[in-house]
Amino acid sequence: MNVGIITIGNELLNGFTVDTNAAWMGQEVLKCGSDVRCHCTISDDADEIIRALGNMKEKVDVILSTGGLGPTHDDVTATAWSTFFEDQPVFDEEYWNELQKRFRRSKRDIPDLNRNQAMRPQKGKPIPNPTGGSARGLYYHIEGVHYFAMPGVPREMQGMMKKTVLPFLRKISPSDLFVSTLRTTGIPESELAEKVESVLQQYGSLCKVAFLPQITGVDIRISSKEERHLVSLETALFPHIKSAFYGTGDQSLEGVVGNQLKAIGLTIATAESCTGGLLSHRLTNVSGSSAYMKGGVISYSNDAKIDILDVSGDTLRDYGAVSEETARKMAHGVQKLLESDIGVAITGIAGPTGGSDEKPVGLVYIGLVIRGETTVREFYFTKNREINKDLSTQAALNMVRLGIVNI
Amino acid sequence: MNVGIITIGNELLNGFTVDTNAAWMGQEVLKCGSDVRCHCTISDDADEIIRALGNMKEKVDVILSTGGLGPTHDDVTATAWSTFFEDQPVFDEEYWNELQKRFRRSKRDIPDLNRNQAMRPQKGKPIPNPTGGSARGLYYHIEGVHYFAMPGVPREMQGMMKKTVLPFLRKISPSDLFVSTLRTTGIPESELAEKVESVLQQYGSLCKVAFLPQITGVDIRISSKEERHLVSLETALFPHIKSAFYGTGDQSLEGVVGNQLKAIGLTIATAESCTGGLLSHRLTNVSGSSAYMKGGVISYSNDAKIDILDVSGDTLRDYGAVSEETARKMAHGVQKLLESDIGVAITGIAGPTGGSDEKPVGLVYIGLVIRGETTVREFYFTKNREINKDLSTQAALNMVRLGIVNI
Repeated sequence: MNVGIITIGNELLNGFTVDTNAAWMGQEVLKCGSDVRCHCTISDDADEIIRALGNMKEKVDVILSTGGLGPTHDDVTATAWSTFFEDQPVFDEEYWNELQKRFRRSKRDIPDLNRNQAMRPQKGKPIPNPTGGSARGLYYHIEGVHYFAMPGVPREMQGMMKKTVLPFLRKISPSDLFVSTLRTTGIPESELAEKVESVLQQYGSLCKVAFLPQITGVDIRISSKEERHLVSLETALFPHIKSAFYGTGDQSLEGVVGNQLKAIGLTIATAESCTGGLLSHRLTNVSGSSAYMKGGVISYSNDAKIDILDVSGDTLRDYGAVSEETARKMAHGVQKLLESDIGVAITGIAGPTGGSDEKPVGLVYIGLVIRGETTVREFYFTKNREINKDLSTQAALNMVRLGIVNI
Repeated sequence: MNVGIITIGNELLNGFTVDTNAAWMGQEVLKCGSDVRCHCTISDDADEIIRALGNMKEKVDVILSTGGLGPTHDDVTATAWSTFFEDQPVFDEEYWNELQKRFRRSKRDIPDLNRNQAMRPQKGKPIPNPTGGSARGLYYHIEGVHYFAMPGVPREMQGMMKKTVLPFLRKISPSDLFVSTLRTTGIPESELAEKVESVLQQYGSLCKVAFLPQITGVDIRISSKEERHLVSLETALFPHIKSAFYGTGDQSLEGVVGNQLKAIGLTIATAESCTGGLLSHRLTNVSGSSAYMKGGVISYSNDAKIDILDVSGDTLRDYGAVSEETARKMAHGVQKLLESDIGVAITGIAGPTGGSDEKPVGLVYIGLVIRGETTVREFYFTKNREINKDLSTQAALNMVRLGIVNI
C-alpha cells in the first residue's frame, strides 16, 4: 500500500511547531508493511486542502491528513473535504447531545462554535475520537482511494491511528509484512554490522534488514513476508548482539531496566553530577517506578558530594571530582544513603566548557554497585552538552541492565 | 515573497528522522518578511524531485530544497536539477583541487565518489559551504523563480541559509517585516487574550498578533512592517502580561532563571518527588549552571524525605507525602542540606495511577524558600504523567523567577 500524508497548519509552515506527527505516522505505517510515498504540509486554507487531495490521490492508495478539525474559523478541513467529495454533511443530533453531556459533566457550557464538530458526512463516515476530545475524524472511500482526516493534536491523532487507521491498514495490506525492531546500545553501527554480517548473508533473500543509528544506540529493523523467517533470523542474530540488545519495538531502556528490577525485587538509587538529574528523570518516567526507585542525589558541587554522598575530601583532592575513584564513592554513598540494592553514579564533564587536556569535555565515569559488587567504566563522549547527558544516562542504564543480568 | 520548501529523504518519509530543517527554515524565512506557502517531503528519487520542482514553481517565487547533495548513489539532487533545468554541469578542477587539499590536511585520501561534488552548473551557480563540508549548494534563477538546493545536514543547511539565502531573501523582499516573540507561562491562552484585548485593538492595523499555545505556556508572536510599532506594542502589552512574561525569542525559562541567579549571585537547590529529577535536569541543561546550582535530592520514597530532607515522620503521617506541609518541609530541608540561598521542592501525584478522590492524579504542591521567605502553591494539572512532569517543573521555575523578581 502506498500512503500519502497531508499535514495542515500555518504553525507548521512557519516553523512554530515542529511536525512530529508526520514522523510518528511514517513509523507506524512502516510497521504495518506499507510505505509513505509523499508528505506535504499546507496552510489552513480550503483551496489548498482541495488541491492537495486532488494531487495526492493520483499517487497513493491511502491518504492520511491531520489538523484543521477544531471548532474555530481556522479549522476548515471538514468544509474542504465535503467540497472535494461533493458531500453534504448533516447535523448529528445524537453526537451533539453526547458533547453537551460531556461539557455539563465538567461543569462548562458548550459553546455554539462546537456545533460544526457534530456534523456527519453522508458519503463517508465519522471516526470516533478515543481520547475524549470533541473532534471526530473523517473517512471516505472514493474511487479506490481511502481518505482519513484526523485532528492535529498528537494524542488525539495517535488514538485514532491506533484504534481505527492502523488496524485498517493491516487488514487491507495485500501481503502482510512482518516487521520487528531489535534495539541495541553500546556498540557502534559499523562494529555491530560486522558482528552480524555472516548471519545476514544467510538470510539475504528471506528478510530485509536495515540499521537505524541514533545517538543513543542502533535499532536493527528486520522485515519479512513470513513470520517464521523473521523469528529464525532473530534467533540467529541474538548470540552476536547479546550484550548490546536490550529490547524490541519501542521499548525504552529505562522501561526494560524497570521490568528487570520489578521481576527480581531490587531497588535502585542514583547519584548524578554532570547529568544533573536526567538519569532519575528517565527512571521515573516509567509508570510504577516508585516500586523500585528509592531516590537520588544531584551532587553538582563538591560540598554535596562530601556532605550527602560521603565522598571524602581526600578523594576529591587526590583524584578530582571527575575520576574513577569519585564515581565509585558516589555509587556506594547513594546506595548506603538510600538503603537500596543498587547504586549508580555518573560524574563527568558535560561541556561545552570546563575541559582540560588531561580531562577533556566528554570524559565521563559511571560507577555501579550491585549487592556489594562494584564496577566503574570510563567513557569519552562528545563536545555537546545535551548529547553527553543523553549518552551518559544511556550508558548508565545499560550498565545497570547488564549488571542485573549477570547477578 | 512566497517561499516553498522541498525536503528530500526516505528517512524523513518513514519517520526515522523528524524534519527539523523545515521548521527552522520556516522561522528564518518569516523573520525576513517572507512566508512559507507549502512544504513537501519526497523520497530520494530523481523523478520525484523533478515533479516536485515542476509543481512548486507555479505557486511560489523562491524554492528552498534540502538533502540529496552527498557523494553516494542515494544523492540524486544535483542530477535531477540539471535534468530539470536542461543544464550540463562541468567538472570544476579548481574546487576538486581544493577538496583534495582539505582531505590531505586531515590525512585522508579523497574517494573518487566525491568527484560528483565538484561539478559546477552552467546555467546556475554553486553556493559555498561555509561549514567546511564538501557539498556545495546550487542556485538557479529561471523564469523569475529562485531555486536553492542545500545539504540535509542541519549545520550545513543553516550555514548556507545564514551566509547566502537569508541575506538574498532580505534583499529581494519587497518590505522588511519585524517579528518578535513574547514568551509567557502560567496564564491560559483565553485569559491572556482577554487581558490584552484592548491594547491589541489599538494596534490592529499596525501589527499582526498570533497566540501560540504550548503545553507549558503561550508565546505571543507580533509582527509589523515598522520596528517602532513593534516596540511600542511590546511596551503597551508589558504591564498586562507582566507576571506571565519571562523572555523573548527562543529563550528558555531555565535559561532566564539562570541569568537571574547569576546576576544577583544566588545559589539554588532542588527537592523533587513526582518530577523525579526533571527540574534539576532542566536547570543543569544551561551551560555554566554549576555557578549557581548546588544540587538536588530526588526523594521518591518517604524514607528519603525523612532521612535526607529532614521532613518529620509526623508531617508525612498527618498531612501525607503530597501536601502543602511536606512541600514546605522539603524546600527548607534541601536549602539547609545544600546550604543554598534558594530551595525549591515539588511533590505530587504524576499518575496515571496512584490518585484518590481526595488527592487526584495531577495534584501537585510546589514549595519555595528564598532567604527565609516561604511560599507553597497548589496545582491541579492533568492525568498524563509526562505532561504533569513538564507542567510541574515549568510552574516551579516560574515561581523561582517571580520569587527573585520580588526580592
